[in-house]
Amino acid sequence: MKIWEKGIPTDQKIEAFTVGNDREIDGHIAKYDLLASKAHAQMLAKVGLLTNEESSLLCSELDKMLSLEAKGEFVIEPQFEDVHSKIEHDLVLALGDTGKKIHTARSRNDQVLVALNLYFKAELSEIKSGIEKLFKTLIDLAETHKNQLIPGYTHLQVAMPSSFGLWFSAYAELLIDDLYLLNAAQQVVDQNPLGSAAGYGSSFPIDREMTTEALGFTDLKYNVIAAQLSRGKSERTVTQAVANVANTLSRFAMDVCLYCSQNFSFIKFPDELTTGSSIMPHKKNPDVFELLRGKCNQLQAIPQEMIMITNNLPSGYHRDFQLLKENAIKSVEDLKVVLDIFEFAIAQVKVQKVDLAEEKYQHLFTVDAINDLVAARVPFRDAYRQIGEQVVNGTFEAGNTREHSHVGSIHNLGLDKIMEKFERAFQG
Amino acid sequence: MKIWEKGIPTDQKIEAFTVGNDREIDGHIAKYDLLASKAHAQMLAKVGLLTNEESSLLCSELDKMLSLEAKGEFVIEPQFEDVHSKIEHDLVLALGDTGKKIHTARSRNDQVLVALNLYFKAELSEIKSGIEKLFKTLIDLAETHKNQLIPGYTHLQVAMPSSFGLWFSAYAELLIDDLYLLNAAQQVVDQNPLGSAAGYGSSFPIDREMTTEALGFTDLKYNVIAAQLSRGKSERTVTQAVANVANTLSRFAMDVCLYCSQNFSFIKFPDELTTGSSIMPHKKNPDVFELLRGKCNQLQAIPQEMIMITNNLPSGYHRDFQLLKENAIKSVEDLKVVLDIFEFAIAQVKVQKVDLAEEKYQHLFTVDAINDLVAARVPFRDAYRQIGEQVVNGTFEAGNTREHSHVGSIHNLGLDKIMEKFERAFQG
Amino acid sequence: MKIWEKGIPTDQKIEAFTVGNDREIDGHIAKYDLLASKAHAQMLAKVGLLTNEESSLLCSELDKMLSLEAKGEFVIEPQFEDVHSKIEHDLVLALGDTGKKIHTARSRNDQVLVALNLYFKAELSEIKSGIEKLFKTLIDLAETHKNQLIPGYTHLQVAMPSSFGLWFSAYAELLIDDLYLLNAAQQVVDQNPLGSAAGYGSSFPIDREMTTEALGFTDLKYNVIAAQLSRGKSERTVTQAVANVANTLSRFAMDVCLYCSQNFSFIKFPDELTTGSSIMPHKKNPDVFELLRGKCNQLQAIPQEMIMITNNLPSGYHRDFQLLKENAIKSVEDLKVVLDIFEFAIAQVKVQKVDLAEEKYQHLFTVDAINDLVAARVPFRDAYRQIGEQVVNGTFEAGNTREHSHVGSIHNLGLDKIMEKFERAFQG
Amino acid sequence: MKIWEKGIPTDQKIEAFTVGNDREIDGHIAKYDLLASKAHAQMLAKVGLLTNEESSLLCSELDKMLSLEAKGEFVIEPQFEDVHSKIEHDLVLALGDTGKKIHTARSRNDQVLVALNLYFKAELSEIKSGIEKLFKTLIDLAETHKNQLIPGYTHLQVAMPSSFGLWFSAYAELLIDDLYLLNAAQQVVDQNPLGSAAGYGSSFPIDREMTTEALGFTDLKYNVIAAQLSRGKSERTVTQAVANVANTLSRFAMDVCLYCSQNFSFIKFPDELTTGSSIMPHKKNPDVFELLRGKCNQLQAIPQEMIMITNNLPSGYHRDFQLLKENAIKSVEDLKVVLDIFEFAIAQVKVQKVDLAEEKYQHLFTVDAINDLVAARVPFRDAYRQIGEQVVNGTFEAGNTREHSHVGSIHNLGLDKIMEKFERAFQG
Repeated sequence: MKIWEKGIPTDQKIEAFTVGNDREIDGHIAKYDLLASKAHAQMLAKVGLLTNEESSLLCSELDKMLSLEAKGEFVIEPQFEDVHSKIEHDLVLALGDTGKKIHTARSRNDQVLVALNLYFKAELSEIKSGIEKLFKTLIDLAETHKNQLIPGYTHLQVAMPSSFGLWFSAYAELLIDDLYLLNAAQQVVDQNPLGSAAGYGSSFPIDREMTTEALGFTDLKYNVIAAQLSRGKSERTVTQAVANVANTLSRFAMDVCLYCSQNFSFIKFPDELTTGSSIMPHKKNPDVFELLRGKCNQLQAIPQEMIMITNNLPSGYHRDFQLLKENAIKSVEDLKVVLDIFEFAIAQVKVQKVDLAEEKYQHLFTVDAINDLVAARVPFRDAYRQIGEQVVNGTFEAGNTREHSHVGSIHNLGLDKIMEKFERAFQG
Repeated sequence: MKIWEKGIPTDQKIEAFTVGNDREIDGHIAKYDLLASKAHAQMLAKVGLLTNEESSLLCSELDKMLSLEAKGEFVIEPQFEDVHSKIEHDLVLALGDTGKKIHTARSRNDQVLVALNLYFKAELSEIKSGIEKLFKTLIDLAETHKNQLIPGYTHLQVAMPSSFGLWFSAYAELLIDDLYLLNAAQQVVDQNPLGSAAGYGSSFPIDREMTTEALGFTDLKYNVIAAQLSRGKSERTVTQAVANVANTLSRFAMDVCLYCSQNFSFIKFPDELTTGSSIMPHKKNPDVFELLRGKCNQLQAIPQEMIMITNNLPSGYHRDFQLLKENAIKSVEDLKVVLDIFEFAIAQVKVQKVDLAEEKYQHLFTVDAINDLVAARVPFRDAYRQIGEQVVNGTFEAGNTREHSHVGSIHNLGLDKIMEKFERAFQG
Repeated sequence: MKIWEKGIPTDQKIEAFTVGNDREIDGHIAKYDLLASKAHAQMLAKVGLLTNEESSLLCSELDKMLSLEAKGEFVIEPQFEDVHSKIEHDLVLALGDTGKKIHTARSRNDQVLVALNLYFKAELSEIKSGIEKLFKTLIDLAETHKNQLIPGYTHLQVAMPSSFGLWFSAYAELLIDDLYLLNAAQQVVDQNPLGSAAGYGSSFPIDREMTTEALGFTDLKYNVIAAQLSRGKSERTVTQAVANVANTLSRFAMDVCLYCSQNFSFIKFPDELTTGSSIMPHKKNPDVFELLRGKCNQLQAIPQEMIMITNNLPSGYHRDFQLLKENAIKSVEDLKVVLDIFEFAIAQVKVQKVDLAEEKYQHLFTVDAINDLVAARVPFRDAYRQIGEQVVNGTFEAGNTREHSHVGSIHNLGLDKIMEKFERAFQG
Repeated sequence: MKIWEKGIPTDQKIEAFTVGNDREIDGHIAKYDLLASKAHAQMLAKVGLLTNEESSLLCSELDKMLSLEAKGEFVIEPQFEDVHSKIEHDLVLALGDTGKKIHTARSRNDQVLVALNLYFKAELSEIKSGIEKLFKTLIDLAETHKNQLIPGYTHLQVAMPSSFGLWFSAYAELLIDDLYLLNAAQQVVDQNPLGSAAGYGSSFPIDREMTTEALGFTDLKYNVIAAQLSRGKSERTVTQAVANVANTLSRFAMDVCLYCSQNFSFIKFPDELTTGSSIMPHKKNPDVFELLRGKCNQLQAIPQEMIMITNNLPSGYHRDFQLLKENAIKSVEDLKVVLDIFEFAIAQVKVQKVDLAEEKYQHLFTVDAINDLVAARVPFRDAYRQIGEQVVNGTFEAGNTREHSHVGSIHNLGLDKIMEKFERAFQG
């Protein structure tokens, strides 16, 4: 059953093609369509397009569906092409003519827009919570392992002393940048598009401020064409914010996999977090972090799809937009899992003892040695040359690291400052 | 001359390959490297690594270069591989041993990081100003043409009444979303990485808060590994923010080109803004807007390059990062031109009279007709069916549009509200 | 049950994360894993690692599974992480120790590689058949409508005379280019990776030429590291070939949607191929072609994901590669549907009468007019100027088109030549 | 001077914006525009649109320009917007009315198309030669180092024995797949678009077969709309073929950088191929391979730009297409440099002695040990379990590798077979 059907039999192949897997996807936004429909019904009563009684009846039916949804029992049966026709159908079934009035002064276009914005808004908060949990775990790991030095690399070449504390808290601090983008994405979706109808508004005197307030939106997307043009823009912005978090975690996972290699042996994981090989019985592979890296790389490809679908299309709704939903929602749902697994897994890291006296690390302290000379007032460039000659002649003696006192360095991680910055960014 | 040369002759082909076109690109960041070097010199004096006199001499030389730069006379000669070696060379030339001390407690890595962040921060402000100018022009155009109706389309099919006022202000309001992302990008780059040296900090007791304040950064990138990992992240974030603006303008340009087609004839441009054909003497093509669209599509491809260069690389500097500069800077510079030309061109649009009584627009007011029935208390779905039958039977009479009173609709554009929202977003 | 399990209980969350939706996806490659397992068993017998009897028993069990698969009754139960462990499990169940020998001299890595290559090879042929069908339909449409002129556009501006015949056959000819890429993709996957085991081959004296022949591969991927590195490369190549077809169809669909607009009215589709609006009862939207366009745009985004997952990873298998399967297979399966629906829908196009005498098309024949002058020996540039002046003065008289006789032009479509070229490309 | 100017002064800013950097870019295609203009002039004479004398005069002038071009002395002065107007201007200057006839029956659109196709065709051959040179170097390296074992990795974990010979020849064999794509790209561009004019052909009885033969094209792009639609398609196909080579080299470069790390120490490079650090005097960084990797990652991002510029645009020329040239040409030119430098650099690799008896490599031979048991008729899965237990108990003794005899394995690299396959692919 399709609400736009005009008695014309449609070839089933075409039917299946146009409906796609909307029913599955719409499970994620059912709750928000119900909430928006309630706000819409209340508004229609306020401006006189429904009686108060009609509005109450509609809201009461919508509440029943919301209860079902909360229990996981709200099902979109195969005869419906999407959640929107399902809801309208059930309202008409229950309330007859009153049900037929719910679609007054709106279109499926703004129904989808408002439901998606509400979904994204809620889920971006969830993602921020996931980041907060991971952030705290990383700060704890940094604090715990702040005195364990490891070599730092540039160009994958042994460079200067680093530490586990520095490494863990680096990724913690990077997550703060991702919060800035998530906050911006929230601003983009925290605007009420309801009332834009098919993208050209309505001749009814609807009260868009009322639904804005009822739905908890901070702002209105005033212009109705702009509201319609935000389709694609919201999805792109949200998936980009997701992709930014994914980028941070992907690079972190790469470090993890590299440091697990026997050629580094900086870290290990308990057996539950490694997997074996179908052919090599000795393997304990860091599959979890490889899959996290892979997932994060997939997530980074999604914004491009959002762009491709809408780019170069003239303004106004096009059916192509239906296809935005699937991977935009997948992106959000996947990141939540990724954050959860990443936190769970990294918390179990087993930091290994790294022997900086090994021959391969022999030049780790050359800069510290230069700095000793500089402290004795040798100009930096001359000190650099002097130590450089020792390296070439093989006379350089490794020694040990000096105290690094400045903020953000191995002996002064500045975790409290980083936590303060996180808190500010988290508040938005 | 390369500062890292150790007397080993390098094959010229390799030399050219590794230097690339850094010299050209570095013209954009010279000013910021000079400013950061001054702040660094002052800080070195404060913590006792330079005498006050040495610091003054260095700052005075750097000021001279800044004056040259301001006059466009600061040249990076071919013997230098980049701006950083040029500056250090000139300091040594002018000040001898004192010049050799400027690189104390820093590395080229954090030099580049801090210069790029300062550049991005300044340029994002420029871009916001460009957006503001375009926004105002669009609001003016909307106000001027608020009473001129045009057909609104969905699926490129004639749908419901729209107006020039609605169209111009739609893109004005969309630009506000782009400000949110630009603000977030500014937060990402408004953090001081100076002092992270090669990505592992320094054993000198440097004062990073001092340089943060001196350079006008809002925050510090505390963790030195995080500072290094921000390479690539900054470029990606900035180019994404640029790409978001570009996406808005690309879609706007598509509308412009379509509406210029004789099959629409909604708008025209003065001859100076159109170009002819080498073969068809009657052509007045909207090349400016096509090139704007094309440029904006190029700009949307750049973030992918930023991701590709850094993705899956372990932490720590890699020389690949040098390649981020070129298109990140190009992205920023191009968008400024695009905003300038777009504003200049759209301001000259010649809005045409569109005759809504033409047969092709005959169904433009069906929803208005439904709404009349709904106002007479026919349930929406029944009214929809009734008008639908008239359309099929050919008995539907076009009539005219009703007054659309709600905010954001054709007769109530809400321009003041949109301007207020813009102002809030612009302040950040 | 996982074949690599070593008695260690694994957290269920991690389990679900690492298995992902492999079971569903593997349905597409089950047949090919069974075929490859047969070839492997036969080869093991030949080189003496199995007895002939063991090999026969294994092949017989595999044949049973192949029959089930052909009937759609081969099920990968939830206790298996993928199709490969399912098959081995069933062999062990049926044959005991003999079953345990099937994995001799291979690894899951080359099992997946060979199954994917066989799948891609078969499906690329399917795609070519789908293209052939669409090609023929387009040639038929071109032949049918070769005398119906329409305006041709450049810059979306009315330019020169075109025709439906020219338009339909343009996309037919473009599909030939896509065949070249599909053929190349087939060459990439038509190489036997079996025997590369985990990416470093086997100490057993396996006979890789034998399995190559048995499986119908044209060539061997000799080097075992190269075989492993082809993971990601195959998926990228195949999805790029798919994306190239999608690009052709996406642009075609854009034309279709534009030409359906009332502002063009060049074509229509029967009601079964249009959809209505939930709010506007007059709408007959070309949703099918919009969804085709959207799907094709999604397909064009997939190669980027393939690149992202493998890029910058060192050689050797990484678990990230598991994630390549899902969208590589989806890409192939989706394109088959897209080709099917596109052919079905375009075949029903209703070409409209376009009146070239309408005022908006008045300059359609300026080049023909110039050519008359040139034929009378006026130099081209002077003739161009002369007609240009007429256009400016409003004295240009539209006239009609001249006969265009050269191959590929409106009056000489060259369909036979295009069909010959197609045939050559199709044969590869 | 612009050939389409109609006496209307154009704002200089707009001028600069629309011309872009076409002049620079067009240097790469000047030769091909001259050659195509010659073929066009000869054809015009054949069909009677020029006298033989006129045609000879034009060809003679074009030959003069070709000589200049060959000497690098053909300059596009600033007053010309592109190479095409420059050439026409010079012909008119030299030959008066005869010069004005060169543009008969063509448009700038097909002029650009044919010049680009000729350029791409020539350059793809150059690229194939570059690949051949690198291929041979890698085969030589493989032959030289075929007996030097290194650990093979999966998941970056020590897995099974590999060798330098296997590693070098793996990338050699991978390059063959890239040839398939390059050959396909050549088929796409080896079609003559000349005569399609502005995308709708000409009313003149031009002879397109004649120019096809004269220019050495294998085939014609018959349909004139298809010819125009190939703009963007050619650029995308060529840049994808380039990107595929880049992908192979990017992954190779990653291996190189990793194996240079002190934690692997598998290879080194002479000092001329490494660079130092501005702060760490001991560094010898593999910058050349990092820049090669970075360049290759940039090259992999370019096809996306090609797609973005043309996607969702209706058929017919749009000015956006002008922007395709820059990065399509850059892509080709960059890859030639990358191939050259890569070959030059890898040829100088210094293979290190890797001690497989080191503790970290202790489990490298577990599969060989399993295979010994299997050879003694223990079922594979049981042998796997047995050796697995030894590993867990710490009783596994490393031993050494067995002879790997099958083709493509460490002791039987199959270089002759790989060379044969290369040769076949190179011939196309």
